[in-house]
Formats: sequence, structure tokens, C-alpha cells
Amino acid sequence: MEVRAPADRESGTPSVIRTGRFAGLGSGEELEARLRVIGAERYHDNHPFHKLMRDGVLTRGQLQAWALNRFYYQSRIPIKDSALMSRIVDADLRREWSQRVIDHDGTREGRGGLAKWLHLCERLGLPRERVLAEDGVLPATRFAVDAYVHFVRDRPLLEAIASSLTELFAPAIIGERTSAMLARYEFVDEDTLAYFTARLTQAPRDADFALDYVKRHATSPELRETVCKALVFKTDVLWAQLDALHFAYVDPRITPPGAFVPD
Amino acid sequence: MEVRAPADRESGTPSVIRTGRFAGLGSGEELEARLRVIGAERYHDNHPFHKLMRDGVLTRGQLQAWALNRFYYQSRIPIKDSALMSRIVDADLRREWSQRVIDHDGTREGRGGLAKWLHLCERLGLPRERVLAEDGVLPATRFAVDAYVHFVRDRPLLEAIASSLTELFAPAIIGERTSAMLARYEFVDEDTLAYFTARLTQAPRDADFALDYVKRHATSPELRETVCKALVFKTDVLWAQLDALHFAYVDPRITPPGAFVPD
Repeated sequence: MEVRAPADRESGTPSVIRTGRFAGLGSGEELEARLRVIGAERYHDNHPFHKLMRDGVLTRGQLQAWALNRFYYQSRIPIKDSALMSRIVDADLRREWSQRVIDHDGTREGRGGLAKWLHLCERLGLPRERVLAEDGVLPATRFAVDAYVHFVRDRPLLEAIASSLTELFAPAIIGERTSAMLARYEFVDEDTLAYFTARLTQAPRDADFALDYVKRHATSPELRETVCKALVFKTDVLWAQLDALHFAYVDPRITPPGAFVPD
Repeated sequence: MEVRAPADRESGTPSVIRTGRFAGLGSGEELEARLRVIGAERYHDNHPFHKLMRDGVLTRGQLQAWALNRFYYQSRIPIKDSALMSRIVDADLRREWSQRVIDHDGTREGRGGLAKWLHLCERLGLPRERVLAEDGVLPATRFAVDAYVHFVRDRPLLEAIASSLTELFAPAIIGERTSAMLARYEFVDEDTLAYFTARLTQAPRDADFALDYVKRHATSPELRETVCKALVFKTDVLWAQLDALHFAYVDPRITPPGAFVPD
């Protein structure tokens, strides 16, 4: 049975790690429960920047900054998935994983998640060339996203796969984001948000697969703990991106040298 | 002759890159002048967090957060220098570079820059074990610092060496930092700041060596531009660390899950 204390923000140590190193990691089911606690506590739907987006109070310029920086993240997803595939010997697993790359790259030009995200950027008023040039992306975005690519390339395969598990929590945040954007911004319509519509079916499929994989392959409390730590790492990657956006574009609006400045 | 426009913050593009790709990169002397412009515009002595430190208005808790996070950076310096050495075939150059590792690690336990930094942390009231455990370090600190280690490991040797050139600008910031800390904080004395005293002679020696190296080995405008970009990258690494500290501990004080919280 899982034993948990409430989140202890004062000590800075998340409750899930405090309460005995391997407590609640005795089985795959306990692992899943722990992963869901990590998501509830650390996923970026808890971040003030997301709450501003959900509440529809971000300006067009702030949404531009978000879309521009987030495209850098999107662009690295198929790179990290390719890095992961390059480490898989089993053809079945590699084929399964390759669907993620196809989802982002599309089966031909103009299709796929990256094209849809570029479309969103353009509807927000960002020139496509600027987005593709990664011009003005916050250094902190690059550092966080690149850390994710390096993690997937360098860490054990189990952890690399586990770091994708934030997809478990994606549908809820996508729902909040799209309904707010449709309701509040006249320049946003269903077509603009096509990326998210597709993710609503892709993310749960991917998350279910990865969750099943880590439950089957993390066969000891020690391995289950590495799975949890990989998910914590990934939530940090997402959270740090919103920190940097909030700092540069919301409060206190200290924009690093060279970063995008909205009109 | 070097042609420069004033910094153009509005477009977000630094002036040094805007005015023609290779303008002012026709010689080693022009390269040096350009590097000094990059330092003047982008080094972290321009950051609001440093200005608060220089003005002596940071609280002890804020200084603790700075020292704790900065120790993570310090701890990775000899790692990145070892990574750099692992890529050098020439014994003379490797021997020269090894002095940097020795400066941080010391010739025996308790000596060296890392020990001095730990001493500073302890004088600020941080338990040594906590600092060594890297407990509560901001994820953004890890991402930025790890990006530096990866850069030095993965990029061409010329760029890896060029990324150390922020040392050119270190003596001025150290002077501002130490005089402010000695004047304003009763828990800081000369002994506490021994790390910086040592760096005042080490940094110029290292910077002169690296500057001479890049001037001799960057033999075309194209290569000189890669040197400039490496320095820009490194200024981003330093700047992003202060962004994250400012955001979490000064304004608006949104501290990421798991991060250090001062008493």
C-alpha cells in the first residue's frame, strides 16, 4: 500500500520522495499510482502561466512568445524519439515507437504535428520563417528542451521511455487550453488548434503504451524509482519552460538579450 | 574596421550579429574587439540579480539560493574541463588546460576552488551535505549548466575553448561582488570570499590563454563567427542562471516544485 505525506513545499522536497525511498513501489499498480501523484503535483497545468492561458488573459504577444518557444520543444520531440529508436534493438518496439515520429513529421509535407504547430504560429501572427529559424527563442527553452533530448539519448532505455509519461496528463491540459483559446481569442478557431485535436487521441495511445511498458519492465522497487525520477525530470523540463516564459513576458518581464520581443 | 549598430533590443537581435554576418571579423584583433562587445552587452554583470547583489540588497536567504545553485555550476566546471581535455590530442595543450581542473579540485582535499565555494556556502548558513547532495537546485540551473558541459563535449574544439572566454569579464564582476558583500553583510569576511580572491589571478591567466588560442586558430571570418557564437552561448548559460534565481527568489518568487526554500 502506498504511504504518502502531503506535498511539503517548505522543505522543498516533494512528498513522493520523502516518505521512504521505496515506499509504495512494490508493484506495477503502486508505480502507476505514484506516477499519477507526481503528475498531480508537478505537471505544468499547475503553473501560473498555464492558468493565465486557461483564463484567457494572455495577450496576443504573450501567446506568440509561448507558441514560438513551444515550437522549439515540438521540433525536438521527433529528434528525441529518433534518438530513443536508435537505442532499441527490438524491431517490434522500434516500429511501435516510430509512430510518434510520423505523428509529428507527417506522412508527407504539410501534414503532421509540426506543420499543425507552424499553422498555429502563423495564425498568431508569427512569420513561419522566423519560427523555423528559431530566432528569438529563450535560451532557457533551449537548455530545458536540449536536456530532454540528452536525457533520452544518454539514460537507460527504461528511463528514456518513462520520461514520455507526461502524456498521461496531456488530455486535461489540452482541453483547458483549447476551450479557453476558442472562447477568448477571436483570431483562434478550430482549424488553428488542429494540433491539439490530433493530440487528444495520440497522447492517450502513447501514454498507455509507455505506462504498460514501464510497469512490465520496472521489475524492482529500485527500477520503479528510476521511472518516477524520470517523470519528475520531465515535469521539470516542462515547468522550466513556463517559468522562463512567465519571467520574460508576464512578470517581471525581464527579457534576456536576443530574445523575442512582441510588437 | 568594425562596424556596429547600437544594441537593438526591440527586434531582439543583438547588434553584433545584425550588421552583416562577417563584418568586423577580418582579423584576430577584430575578433577580440567583437568578443569584448559581446561581453559588454551580454555578460551577466548586466543582470538585475547581479545589480541587487552589488547593491547589497539581497537577503541572506537569497544569497543562500545563489550560492547553492552556483555550486552546481562550480561543480561542473572541472567536469567540462575534463571533457575538453579528453578531446585534446596535443599534450602541451592538455597540460596547460589541466591547471584549470587543479584550480577547482585542489592539489589535495580541502584545497581548490570547490572547497572554497563550499566554505562560502557554509558561512552563508547552508549545510555542507545539502550543498553536496545538490538538494533543491533549480531545474533551470541544471539545464543551463548541463548545456554547457554538453556544448564543450560535443562542439568543435575551437568553440569549446571559446566558450570559456567569459573569464575575460570575470575580474570586474568579482570586484563588484566582493566589495559589496564585505561592506553589507556582517556574516561575510575576506576568508568567506577566498574563492574569488584566487579567481582574480586565475581568471585573467585562463582568459589570456584562451583568447590567444582562438585568435591564432580561428583563421577565417567563418571560424571567427563560430567563436563569437560560442561566447554568446556561454553568456546565455550564465544569464539564464540569474533569470531562474530572480524568478524563484526575487520577483515574482514563483519557486518550482522541489526547489530550495530559504528559512
